[in-house]
Amino acid sequence: MKRQDKKSNCAINYALETIGDPWSLLIIRDMVNFGKKTYGEFLASDERIGTSVLAHKLTELEHQEIIRKQPGAIDKRKAEYYLTKKGINFVPLLNELAVWGTTYDEHTAANKTAIAKYQADRQGVIDRTKRVLREYGTVLQNFDYIYANK
Amino acid sequence: MKRQDKKSNCAINYALETIGDPWSLLIIRDMVNFGKKTYGEFLASDERIGTSVLAHKLTELEHQEIIRKQPGAIDKRKAEYYLTKKGINFVPLLNELAVWGTTYDEHTAANKTAIAKYQADRQGVIDRTKRVLREYGTVLQNFDYIYANK
Repeated sequence: MKRQDKKSNCAINYALETIGDPWSLLIIRDMVNFGKKTYGEFLASDERIGTSVLAHKLTELEHQEIIRKQPGAIDKRKAEYYLTKKGINFVPLLNELAVWGTTYDEHTAANKTAIAKYQADRQGVIDRTKRVLREYGTVLQNFDYIYANK
Repeated sequence: MKRQDKKSNCAINYALETIGDPWSLLIIRDMVNFGKKTYGEFLASDERIGTSVLAHKLTELEHQEIIRKQPGAIDKRKAEYYLTKKGINFVPLLNELAVWGTTYDEHTAANKTAIAKYQADRQGVIDRTKRVLREYGTVLQNFDYIYANK
């Protein structure tokens, strides 16, 4: 995004303009919560993103340095996507979306115990989640550590 | 939004679908941070929302019970909008947008001291902000209390 395209100097607007539309955050959610890292895995998510939208979003997120692309560990032709530090810094925002959504969506599939623990210890959960993401790229299999009682 | 329109049972997706597009959060920001409460005040914001989009968004937010409309205190024909509890619960999300935006937007007009204090005491700032919003509808003139040192 060129500077002159920005509508204001408000940091909230800047973040919203960077995110653009919900798909970006859903892709980041797929990486953080579900350990997804390939085009095919993102395509298979419940929200049924279209192929061309997904391709465009991945390019955009890479361009914004929120994710980085690298050759697949097993099949080099199959690209894998990982969150950068800038992407990992969306974790608190994702968590707050989950809190709000869980509060008002009676049909949610969210883990209400985890949400409650987050609300009781935001800082601790954020710190531990970021540490896990830096090391493993996903929170999968590290729930016990992240949502540990203090 | 009808249930069958929802794309998944993910709480994050639910929140994103409810928000719809950035304008909703910018209107909530205008109420929280700048004490705006009338159509004319929202229209005057830097991001230059269009008149028909604004009218549509206000109706939508009212329908979702995120804001409520009431006759103006001085001129009854001039409607005023206030956040409901459901709307006030977007505060942590707004704060995290501000944190992310301030981190990556070098031209931000955000109050970096306030952002730093929030990051050092998320829970306290959230609690105090909600208390102030329930009482006054905006954080204006209550910054010292909200960002007080513990």
